Amino acid sequence: MPKVLLVLGSNSDLPLFGDALKLWPALGIEVQVEISSAHRSPQRTLELATGAPGQGIEVIIAGAGGAAHLAGVIAAHTILPVIGVPINVPPFNGFDSLLAMAQMPKGVPVATLAAGEFGATNSAILSAQILALKYPQIQGKLTRLKEIMEQNVAFKIDAVLAGLG
Amino acid sequence: MPKVLLVLGSNSDLPLFGDALKLWPALGIEVQVEISSAHRSPQRTLELATGAPGQGIEVIIAGAGGAAHLAGVIAAHTILPVIGVPINVPPFNGFDSLLAMAQMPKGVPVATLAAGEFGATNSAILSAQILALKYPQIQGKLTRLKEIMEQNVAFKIDAVLAGLG
Amino acid sequence: MPKVLLVLGSNSDLPLFGDALKLWPALGIEVQVEISSAHRSPQRTLELATGAPGQGIEVIIAGAGGAAHLAGVIAAHTILPVIGVPINVPPFNGFDSLLAMAQMPKGVPVATLAAGEFGATNSAILSAQILALKYPQIQGKLTRLKEIMEQNVAFKIDAVLAGLG
Amino acid sequence: MPKVLLVLGSNSDLPLFGDALKLWPALGIEVQVEISSAHRSPQRTLELATGAPGQGIEVIIAGAGGAAHLAGVIAAHTILPVIGVPINVPPFNGFDSLLAMAQMPKGVPVATLAAGEFGATNSAILSAQILALKYPQIQGKLTRLKEIMEQNVAFKIDAVLAGLG
Amino acid sequence: MPKVLLVLGSNSDLPLFGDALKLWPALGIEVQVEISSAHRSPQRTLELATGAPGQGIEVIIAGAGGAAHLAGVIAAHTILPVIGVPINVPPFNGFDSLLAMAQMPKGVPVATLAAGEFGATNSAILSAQILALKYPQIQGKLTRLKEIMEQNVAFKIDAVLAGLG
Amino acid sequence: MPKVLLVLGSNSDLPLFGDALKLWPALGIEVQVEISSAHRSPQRTLELATGAPGQGIEVIIAGAGGAAHLAGVIAAHTILPVIGVPINVPPFNGFDSLLAMAQMPKGVPVATLAAGEFGATNSAILSAQILALKYPQIQGKLTRLKEIMEQNVAFKIDAVLAGLG
Amino acid sequence: MPKVLLVLGSNSDLPLFGDALKLWPALGIEVQVEISSAHRSPQRTLELATGAPGQGIEVIIAGAGGAAHLAGVIAAHTILPVIGVPINVPPFNGFDSLLAMAQMPKGVPVATLAAGEFGATNSAILSAQILALKYPQIQGKLTRLKEIMEQNVAFKIDAVLAGLG
Amino acid sequence: MPKVLLVLGSNSDLPLFGDALKLWPALGIEVQVEISSAHRSPQRTLELATGAPGQGIEVIIAGAGGAAHLAGVIAAHTILPVIGVPINVPPFNGFDSLLAMAQMPKGVPVATLAAGEFGATNSAILSAQILALKYPQIQGKLTRLKEIMEQNVAFKIDAVLAGLG
Repeated sequence: MPKVLLVLGSNSDLPLFGDALKLWPALGIEVQVEISSAHRSPQRTLELATGAPGQGIEVIIAGAGGAAHLAGVIAAHTILPVIGVPINVPPFNGFDSLLAMAQMPKGVPVATLAAGEFGATNSAILSAQILALKYPQIQGKLTRLKEIMEQNVAFKIDAVLAGLG
Repeated sequence: MPKVLLVLGSNSDLPLFGDALKLWPALGIEVQVEISSAHRSPQRTLELATGAPGQGIEVIIAGAGGAAHLAGVIAAHTILPVIGVPINVPPFNGFDSLLAMAQMPKGVPVATLAAGEFGATNSAILSAQILALKYPQIQGKLTRLKEIMEQNVAFKIDAVLAGLG
Repeated sequence: MPKVLLVLGSNSDLPLFGDALKLWPALGIEVQVEISSAHRSPQRTLELATGAPGQGIEVIIAGAGGAAHLAGVIAAHTILPVIGVPINVPPFNGFDSLLAMAQMPKGVPVATLAAGEFGATNSAILSAQILALKYPQIQGKLTRLKEIMEQNVAFKIDAVLAGLG
Repeated sequence: MPKVLLVLGSNSDLPLFGDALKLWPALGIEVQVEISSAHRSPQRTLELATGAPGQGIEVIIAGAGGAAHLAGVIAAHTILPVIGVPINVPPFNGFDSLLAMAQMPKGVPVATLAAGEFGATNSAILSAQILALKYPQIQGKLTRLKEIMEQNVAFKIDAVLAGLG
Repeated sequence: MPKVLLVLGSNSDLPLFGDALKLWPALGIEVQVEISSAHRSPQRTLELATGAPGQGIEVIIAGAGGAAHLAGVIAAHTILPVIGVPINVPPFNGFDSLLAMAQMPKGVPVATLAAGEFGATNSAILSAQILALKYPQIQGKLTRLKEIMEQNVAFKIDAVLAGLG
Repeated sequence: MPKVLLVLGSNSDLPLFGDALKLWPALGIEVQVEISSAHRSPQRTLELATGAPGQGIEVIIAGAGGAAHLAGVIAAHTILPVIGVPINVPPFNGFDSLLAMAQMPKGVPVATLAAGEFGATNSAILSAQILALKYPQIQGKLTRLKEIMEQNVAFKIDAVLAGLG
Repeated sequence: MPKVLLVLGSNSDLPLFGDALKLWPALGIEVQVEISSAHRSPQRTLELATGAPGQGIEVIIAGAGGAAHLAGVIAAHTILPVIGVPINVPPFNGFDSLLAMAQMPKGVPVATLAAGEFGATNSAILSAQILALKYPQIQGKLTRLKEIMEQNVAFKIDAVLAGLG
Repeated sequence: MPKVLLVLGSNSDLPLFGDALKLWPALGIEVQVEISSAHRSPQRTLELATGAPGQGIEVIIAGAGGAAHLAGVIAAHTILPVIGVPINVPPFNGFDSLLAMAQMPKGVPVATLAAGEFGATNSAILSAQILALKYPQIQGKLTRLKEIMEQNVAFKIDAVLAGLG
């Protein structure tokens, strides 16, 4: 089963990824969750980034708030695609994090998503879209997800999970 | 050879992707360029999105300015990963485009990069990172790119191309 | 009776249009409400846009939050006037939506109103002002509305409805 | 021939409306241009607003920069639809004007367009969309405009004018 | 006793001026409060502006939120100094109002204060500073206020009122 | 002749006040210009603030860019009305200065004007409006200025000066 | 024991520095807390700045909200390093304070930290890093702090204090 | 002679530090300049951070643009004080860099200065203020600098250097 790594700067960011953590298995993807900070545990973060391929990880998702460097620091140490989710913490509600993630310099991209829960949930889907190129069994799931969304308009995680079977 | 599609809202956005258009072949990736607007040529945009898989395209990059809907509209019509590049046009220099691309709702992610040339160039690298999962020959190129960057610090396209061979 | 279409990206946006939904009938206008997302139900959105004239609809109002593409996508598929209402959802409270709606490219305008309840309520009045050009009976209602506002200064929906009779 | 009024806060804003001033006649609409300031010539502005219906004007477009009150002040004195175009003057390039136009209070909407040339050009198209409800001959022009844009993707005024005939 | 006029766009803005309404009499200034909207009751607003000198009013304070035109519209119709207080209403908390008030064009200034309660309270003090030039008895009060603030550091209205005697 | 003090943080800000420096004498007001920085020459700034009344100065205008503290620092040391003009220096073009001037705490107001030339020119007019309360001869000038503006719409300094006589 | 001075614009800002006030003694640093406002008690602020060296103070920390001039005003009167903490007060949540602190002119730097609690807590650590250059006993504490953070990832004050012993 | 390390993300940022590079020797401080990117040469950056103490470096200054992580990444790997200078590169002119530097999480501060040349020049002065605590000979230089600034108001590098002798 293809595998992604979700790195969060803090335990308190985990609830934001509630829907995502249900989506990954429903899309046939294994997720490994680690708490690590680019600044407070730089060594651990570096080891997560460089050790990922050896653990069969193919996509890394990093969620962080404030001066959100986590995704960029990981991207500096890997050639795996890195997805960044700006966390909407006070006082600027993720506006600073969005800029600190998206505006990466030439050579080291971070695939930045929406600040907050929208981006957190979408990180599961974007990683699935990426993995579906290599793992065709995910394609059917994503096509089914599009049908569920077209029918329900809203994205309700229960309806999505039920639809994905 | 793996293939990506670059869709731009306007011909005038093409120079911004100058480095990217050199990087794709150097990384062993074919790129197809199309000019289409989410708003002025919606039918053409829709056909590009839905027709992409049939043409062997595996990643779509969309660059647009202002109320930059192009990437989101394409993402609504495909399960391929979609990368968005906010174009830094006046009067807000891509600040509006960054928000209009990144803040996508649950269910339909756009992998948003930096506004302007940084994001344009990085769209080649991010698409290569995504394709490298499936096409191992690209992995060596990306590892080589990291070495070149570590040695040169700066990202000079000529040095990069020379290094990639 | 002239008719407008209100398209919302989500059921949860409906309360914001509470006053508007009372104003339309009071101004002699029929309103049809549909929930559709530019990204999750693009096909449905497209059909709403292209099918509007056939249903006697003359003005379309679209309310959406985040990377609010709904109004722009509808405007791409119709020559009817399209009014956009940025919805003030977290984390950026409609600031992103305002830019994603207003900054439309040449050729496809969206008549953008205030983020949040002010814009939602005003969408009823702007659509009435547009329809009043063709349906003179609405002109008297709008003139009466101006008098009520001049007298009450505040815009209290009950006073407005009572005054419009 | 249906008629619109374009009010600009300053003569220096006129070039921004270069394409718009060609589009109006091409779409079969007469345009009357007036220079008036909400603050420097409030009496003249008030007379333009209240006198518009008597001159056969059916839509008013107001372009202004900085604390752009012009559209709002006009809207306070008329029941005609008022379109606002934020002018991108330094030092904030129309960011202030966009907020000062869009964020109108309940009861008095301004149909706000993009800051700068995009909005200026689109003011001609939005006014035509509004007038087309009453004047069916404009509908064919707008449908033709959509076809021209679909074919050219870009919005080049010469191609548009040639296409409109 | 010198006299100022406080015009608010809405009754709901009055509590924000709670401290100010206590400060004016304590500083020996009479305040007349009126509710009027630049957009909903433009005629009443105009009459307040033009009628002010006849009522012995020497400074006008205008508080408004959103696209806050009230101060600018009043300033257009009077040569009295006009003080603007941006009201911190959702969704942008007065950020739009600050820009809509401060960025006035050449010829018609608005003396803009801080968004929210700070600005509201300070409008009493700024108007007193202006009037003190003509009414020397206010100078002693303002000098006393500076001493109270120097002693208390904080600005607690009860301490201030007690100190002013 | 009534007298105002213009304090600028830097000699290079002087050209921005070109029109203002012509307006003051035309309005019958004497202006004293001083260059002083809140941070680099705090002692001199303090002396200018506290010494102003002794020199017959009745209004102080402070222009500064970046973290523009000049007006606030002066206001802390005087009971004279202080007008702040945010200077539009790079990289943020006065956006930082506007916030640093307007958002003053309770007790010490700064009458903030528009960033850049608009605010600079208006500082002459606002100071005249303030002084006109005490010096009736200025009232006629200001009334004349309103008439000139109503006639010319634009604010051209030559026309204004000619009109003021 | 080395000594720092914490100056806050208001008593109500003190809780934000709760963790910092525990960190200073744990890092072997004495902290003196003073409440003083740049604007309301300028004399007291000036005396705190100029008197600091005489009291053995080697670093000054200033926390303030809104148009946060406190750190800049202190920096103007001392050659000690000055650390600024933007306080996240409504309505702009410290966004104005961040700009008003960071954007200091040439010659007078303020070492600006994050708006809100992050910056408040970090002011203790930055001051310790500065003092550790001169007082080697602090170096061990800071090295220990880095180890604690690497182990805990999160920054929990209790774990930090326990670890520092 | 005390020594600081200046790390820049790119050679092209060097001219911005022109004045700073003259100030350091004039203040009796040795400066070592290195070009290294947090993202393109992460290994080199890490070695610069960890190797600094061994080279006698006591303060590190990092200048970077866009998603400016350089200062934060260095701060994660050292207990030396780290000063961050946001570089004003397009399209957002350092606004993104300011947020990406200042908003650091608890535990790892970056002493952030103004975006652009002001911050670059001030990094020399702030580092001197820090070093002056330990190296009293710098104190006289800084006191002299304050006198020069008080006399000249403006900060002209030639006058400053001449004054420092």
